[in-house]
Amino acid sequence: MTTQALIDTHRATLEKALVTIETREYWSPYPESPRAYGEDAPALGEAAFKARLGKPFELDQPSTGVMDVAEYSPYGIDLGVSYPRPDIDQLIGAAQSAMKAWGRVAPDVRAAVCLEILDRLSKQSFEMAHAVMHTTGQAFMMAFQAGSPHALDRALEAVAYGYREMTRVPRSMRWEKPQGKRDPLVIDKEWHVRPQGVEVTIGVSTFPTWNGYPGIMASLVTGNASIVKPHPGTILPLAIFVETARAVFAEAGFDPNLVTLAVDTPDAPIGKDLVLHENVKLVDFTGGSAFGDWLENNVPQARVFTEKSGVNSVIIDSVPDLKGIMRNLTVSTSLYSGQMCTTPQNIFIPRDGIIVGDDHVTFDEVVNAYTGGLAGLLGDDERASDILGSIKGPDTLARIDDAASGANVLLESRAVTNPTFAGATVRTPVVVGVDAAEEDAYMREMFGPVVFVVATDSTEHSLQLAQKSALEHGALTWLVYSTDPDVIDDAVDSAIDAGVSVAFNLEGGLYVNQSAAFSDFHVTGANPAGNASLTDPAFVANRFRLVGVRKPVLS
Amino acid sequence: MTTQALIDTHRATLEKALVTIETREYWSPYPESPRAYGEDAPALGEAAFKARLGKPFELDQPSTGVMDVAEYSPYGIDLGVSYPRPDIDQLIGAAQSAMKAWGRVAPDVRAAVCLEILDRLSKQSFEMAHAVMHTTGQAFMMAFQAGSPHALDRALEAVAYGYREMTRVPRSMRWEKPQGKRDPLVIDKEWHVRPQGVEVTIGVSTFPTWNGYPGIMASLVTGNASIVKPHPGTILPLAIFVETARAVFAEAGFDPNLVTLAVDTPDAPIGKDLVLHENVKLVDFTGGSAFGDWLENNVPQARVFTEKSGVNSVIIDSVPDLKGIMRNLTVSTSLYSGQMCTTPQNIFIPRDGIIVGDDHVTFDEVVNAYTGGLAGLLGDDERASDILGSIKGPDTLARIDDAASGANVLLESRAVTNPTFAGATVRTPVVVGVDAAEEDAYMREMFGPVVFVVATDSTEHSLQLAQKSALEHGALTWLVYSTDPDVIDDAVDSAIDAGVSVAFNLEGGLYVNQSAAFSDFHVTGANPAGNASLTDPAFVANRFRLVGVRKPVLS
Repeated sequence: MTTQALIDTHRATLEKALVTIETREYWSPYPESPRAYGEDAPALGEAAFKARLGKPFELDQPSTGVMDVAEYSPYGIDLGVSYPRPDIDQLIGAAQSAMKAWGRVAPDVRAAVCLEILDRLSKQSFEMAHAVMHTTGQAFMMAFQAGSPHALDRALEAVAYGYREMTRVPRSMRWEKPQGKRDPLVIDKEWHVRPQGVEVTIGVSTFPTWNGYPGIMASLVTGNASIVKPHPGTILPLAIFVETARAVFAEAGFDPNLVTLAVDTPDAPIGKDLVLHENVKLVDFTGGSAFGDWLENNVPQARVFTEKSGVNSVIIDSVPDLKGIMRNLTVSTSLYSGQMCTTPQNIFIPRDGIIVGDDHVTFDEVVNAYTGGLAGLLGDDERASDILGSIKGPDTLARIDDAASGANVLLESRAVTNPTFAGATVRTPVVVGVDAAEEDAYMREMFGPVVFVVATDSTEHSLQLAQKSALEHGALTWLVYSTDPDVIDDAVDSAIDAGVSVAFNLEGGLYVNQSAAFSDFHVTGANPAGNASLTDPAFVANRFRLVGVRKPVLS
Repeated sequence: MTTQALIDTHRATLEKALVTIETREYWSPYPESPRAYGEDAPALGEAAFKARLGKPFELDQPSTGVMDVAEYSPYGIDLGVSYPRPDIDQLIGAAQSAMKAWGRVAPDVRAAVCLEILDRLSKQSFEMAHAVMHTTGQAFMMAFQAGSPHALDRALEAVAYGYREMTRVPRSMRWEKPQGKRDPLVIDKEWHVRPQGVEVTIGVSTFPTWNGYPGIMASLVTGNASIVKPHPGTILPLAIFVETARAVFAEAGFDPNLVTLAVDTPDAPIGKDLVLHENVKLVDFTGGSAFGDWLENNVPQARVFTEKSGVNSVIIDSVPDLKGIMRNLTVSTSLYSGQMCTTPQNIFIPRDGIIVGDDHVTFDEVVNAYTGGLAGLLGDDERASDILGSIKGPDTLARIDDAASGANVLLESRAVTNPTFAGATVRTPVVVGVDAAEEDAYMREMFGPVVFVVATDSTEHSLQLAQKSALEHGALTWLVYSTDPDVIDDAVDSAIDAGVSVAFNLEGGLYVNQSAAFSDFHVTGANPAGNASLTDPAFVANRFRLVGVRKPVLS
């Protein structure tokens, strides 16, 4: 397709995206229902995934051979994919040279090529779902939705923001300044987009595409090149992305080295060398706080965008009935075994109990409603497997025992047998009871299936503790249950100070873990959970600069 | 005035500003002609300025007494103003507490209060002109225009950008996601502005208001508080700003500690202690590269916006006639004795000469046209004083001798006697001839009245050298003279890579030194001359964050 044909093909989608980032209404151009992809799609996608296994992943990018990696499936299947061995200088040189032409074309062209990449990826949704499932440990449905359509929504959102920012000034205009009785000053002005330079994306093990696409696409649409360094344990999803992106670039007449893959292993990590290269000007990171904090403080030559982690809180003040909230809360604390950065970890409940409907209910009754609900939800192995997925990372497994050790365990973690994958590592959440004063226990991130029920003096006390943990350790979500308008106002006020998104009284099919592209901002950037938001103007505005040209018009 | 009355009063100005930052057309709500301010204004302004001298500057802000400073006038008059002695913890505490209410009000209210501050400052334009003139060394007319109306234009531009960014999402909306046959998910959503925290502005000695207002106003309109630390040698203009801003805040019912003054002296600088305070989240800096580079690399807890300095280039390729260009170039290299960060420093000319009209003209003829024009322009002491102003800073004076020492001086610097202020330090520019190979001489910033004429192999060579110096030492402006469309295209291409604004063939009343608010972006942020642009979306987008609130609507 010519670039003009690409522009025409994707114009309507881009325009709708541009409107929706302003209205924040619900919209998704990539269907989240697997049924929308046609009858053959599931089998073809699974076959495409299986055809990847046990062999080198072919990418015609600069490399120094093929390397084995430490990628593994939490479902226990053997992946056995090897990847091109990267050479940092070679990749950065290739990226810089690819940017030359890409950085100079009109924003419409770059946006159209980016949207074509997303369309191609959408067609690979089943293949991607299997790749995400078998590297991250997500259950299939989450791997499908979060791995492909929802990730593509976020990617499109990033393209739209980048396009919007680049086109906020006219490409050219005539400027006239009156000079009293003299002729006016008349100047023809132009502004040219000047990309910042090479971007490096450092991927996460749990949501490689959902968290990875926004930074990559925001960088590409604004004229930069992207080097994608996946998490050493979760490579395949981003490798598939790189393959598809490179193919689209080549077909559209651009240098495919605009996107390259740079894999590494836990024994020989290359992340620091990569981001410290003088020609790397943008870094996007999702992952743990240790490396995220290091990036924020040690990479002065680049703009660094981080999404790290945090301690998310539930504050239970008063509810109409317990069943409704527990139906929601048990799911949100179980989904993907708590391996979402948005999963609630600490549930704050006043030790004197709460008002439920017209009645006073004791602390223990509230806790029992939660633990009983959780045990019921996850009592059946097949259903539990569909909700929990499996556990990525031995550290996460270890945290379950760590949290339980010597603690007041309210509900024990249970090993679940996955009916399809006998080697899958599946555990239900451990629920630990603590007193508000035991901050060392719960005021730290325990990523994975670990829930603390914290007995507090009052809802005010609960909010204070939630705020303290957000400001000190970061937080992405709060979930507040209250029927009292004053408490709701106080909670909003606390959430603003804490820089945390807050949801109230969720009972139905929306879980606090979920953030919707085009509407919800994921991470506020206002506490240690991350310095950036997916996706907002600040996420894209500094990925390029404008160079002005002035030419006087002689009268 | 009530805040609603303020909103009504300033609505039309804000709306026009919001339109103009998109169209980039000429507009200025603050008259640049002194005559527009009424007959009494000049005398009243001068009297107000004189009444400041020789006594403490009264500000009812937190302080630990009054301190003497090292402020001085390049015109040789005695200023003798003392200021409140700052205590960093006290000022930051006061700023944080002032932000509480300010950060929570609607963007319309903050914008209206900011515009009221600008209106009040506009009424003080003559007083400000004298304060700027006598601290910076600018000639009166420049001090008037750049010190007040043009600075206010930039301030308004920053307010408009901040307001636009805060209002790009609805404050509240209802989100509906279809759920197939089930009822849709319906969620009421709100977004609240969450300011980043305390801002510190570090002022410059030469354009304290023009360079200072944008960061201060961008911070204030987005809900932050500002602590203003002026250059130790140029305090009064920003002290007047602080006084006026505090008065407006108090009248509008807000805590005046939203803006405070923090003076220091060269012997006991407080800049580092101030910006490293954990509660400082935004830093705006204009000044030399040494401290600017330090700020970019050593203040991880804050967003740092810098405007430093650079080596600006003129590339002479071909011209219709020499007189026209020299009329422009002699002025742009003389204005305020080259103490503008936009002043051309290096003039690149092919050693084999250039085409002028239909003729070939030798290198020496071009140089003579320039030095002859310069000598003519600055031959009369009174006119020279009006163009040159006076020299701020002994370092700048020393650089004239440094540049001339042992060099091929094409035009000597001349001491000028200011007809009004006998103690003024006035020097014409020294023009030094160098060969392109002598990079050590000219490829460094020589801030002040120092011009290098560089003999190159060709225009292509000139562009290479200009680009190299921009990428290594920073640059804000290029001025290219060429009648050849291919050369113009090449120069645009080079300028984009170098991240430098470029003007072509200026002959008339527009000088390359000047950048117009609402239209020209000052500093691209894409080379070492600075990491930010006055004023663009990236300058404001990260001064606040959004906190989302979700509440389900039960069906």
